[in-house]
Amino acid sequence: MRAEMAEQPDVLGRLADRFEDHAARVRAILPDRLAGVAFLARGSSDNAAVYGRYLCELAGGRPAGLVAPSLLTLYDARVDYDGYLVVALSQSGATPEIVTVCERLRAAGARTVAVVNDATSPLAEAVEVVVPIEAGDERAVPATKTVTGQMLALAAVASALGPVPFDRGAIAALPGEVRALLADAAEPAGLADRLASAERLFLVARGLLYPAALEAALKVKETARIFAEGLSVADFRHGPIAAVDEHVPVVAFEHAGPARDDVRDLVATLEERGVPVGRLALPAAVPEALAPIPAVVRAQQLALNLTLARGLDPDAPAGLSKVTETH
Amino acid sequence: MRAEMAEQPDVLGRLADRFEDHAARVRAILPDRLAGVAFLARGSSDNAAVYGRYLCELAGGRPAGLVAPSLLTLYDARVDYDGYLVVALSQSGATPEIVTVCERLRAAGARTVAVVNDATSPLAEAVEVVVPIEAGDERAVPATKTVTGQMLALAAVASALGPVPFDRGAIAALPGEVRALLADAAEPAGLADRLASAERLFLVARGLLYPAALEAALKVKETARIFAEGLSVADFRHGPIAAVDEHVPVVAFEHAGPARDDVRDLVATLEERGVPVGRLALPAAVPEALAPIPAVVRAQQLALNLTLARGLDPDAPAGLSKVTETH
Repeated sequence: MRAEMAEQPDVLGRLADRFEDHAARVRAILPDRLAGVAFLARGSSDNAAVYGRYLCELAGGRPAGLVAPSLLTLYDARVDYDGYLVVALSQSGATPEIVTVCERLRAAGARTVAVVNDATSPLAEAVEVVVPIEAGDERAVPATKTVTGQMLALAAVASALGPVPFDRGAIAALPGEVRALLADAAEPAGLADRLASAERLFLVARGLLYPAALEAALKVKETARIFAEGLSVADFRHGPIAAVDEHVPVVAFEHAGPARDDVRDLVATLEERGVPVGRLALPAAVPEALAPIPAVVRAQQLALNLTLARGLDPDAPAGLSKVTETH
Repeated sequence: MRAEMAEQPDVLGRLADRFEDHAARVRAILPDRLAGVAFLARGSSDNAAVYGRYLCELAGGRPAGLVAPSLLTLYDARVDYDGYLVVALSQSGATPEIVTVCERLRAAGARTVAVVNDATSPLAEAVEVVVPIEAGDERAVPATKTVTGQMLALAAVASALGPVPFDRGAIAALPGEVRALLADAAEPAGLADRLASAERLFLVARGLLYPAALEAALKVKETARIFAEGLSVADFRHGPIAAVDEHVPVVAFEHAGPARDDVRDLVATLEERGVPVGRLALPAAVPEALAPIPAVVRAQQLALNLTLARGLDPDAPAGLSKVTETH
């Protein structure tokens, strides 16, 4: 896991180099009048899809959402996807359910893009445009470089749809920012020391950073076997806040963007109540719309350090395999 | 909480009586060519929205999804909702964020429906069609009768969009089915006895029953202060399955519909691994598309019994209030 995390600046660098090319190929297949954007994914890819959902709605100016695969696989729903762009995500490109559903959505009128690591996988065959991650083999069970790679690929898809809240300079600088975070793990390592004995943990973020909270929770659950949950700050206030006390820490992602005050308000409320709170601060030089990528890197570092502190093997969590066969 | 749970057959009965009228009023404002359906909600209403999302996509034959309010409130996104039906849900009808976002989506071209308990609330003022729950005051903090009321109201909205997988007879019979479940709490009470000492809990379901797993987890967290998570069976297999062992029970919702085999497979796998598994069986007489309503009733019974077994007060969970002010 650690070795694959370290490859992220190179993976992101290659994607940054091809960013405009990927965006141009997606732009070429867009419907004349976009009705909406739908993401098709499971697991870690699902969290990247939530990131893509926010960014594509901002850029495309039409609603975006996530496909519910069971409507097609279990109920044989006849849904008209005319005018929709469907973006399918799968690290392996081999999850049978995702391939089948993608084929059906294309047949139902969708224009289709696949973000995959393996450009020769069945999912890549099923779509009109492939945006390859080219992250190389991922051997550790917890997905790391393929997740941040998917996210940058989705930023390219979003930029095909319309104006995005970041410029080319920020894309070019991103791999270096991630390299700097990987070289300095003091903050997440210190946090892991404080939280290593926790059996429950909330990870919260607001706005565009919300998908990073989801991915952080997934990584912590998979590797450190802490029962973690990722939530938006707003949803956290609507209920789960009742479940925290001095034994249930909360980790908040903080960036200098418009969501900062809301995150800080929550942190202050929790500290008053004696809830242990950790913060993962994100580099202000990265625009908020790209900040979920460094946030996921920080989450990986937190999960890795928690896992090691708990005497577990981050590369081979019990009960997990790399390709899940959902039918 | 118990008293308000007991009112559900009457609330559902009134909604069943007005089912066709509610559907007709929604039908009258539909766009000429439906582009999609978007649900706007938070908290318990969010789980009802997931139910509506499945049902409206099945019925309307166009993609459905959930609005991300922060895109509008934090980032001032300019999203074109032409061709969309927006369904806003709020028990109080007074959450300022939901009212503001709903007004903006309507200004952006959406046709708007509000499912609310109080037909004179600000949210009701903001939309073209109001589907009132008429559940009366809800005094206990955990929402019960308003949630199942919202769900049946959403079934009426779905039936405005196209053919639904249930008939009028099933709507008419639903209040009686719920009354029978409320009169016989032996199954959830027995399960609560077995699980009362758990500190962590997964609740899983598949397909149309997935939103019931989400709502069950929310209720258990709010009232019994058990760190519960609701998941689809498919997503559970894609990761969180690694986090369960003999100390982390799993509760599965089971119905005779097409998802049954998948749920049973998972239960068998978990039992082989020594994970404590509980089942909540749902009446086969209720069509699967309406079964999430009795499933939520079973979830309320489970949460209530867990809460009492743990010596807590279900009516006033720590840290929660009825209207949350998200801005």
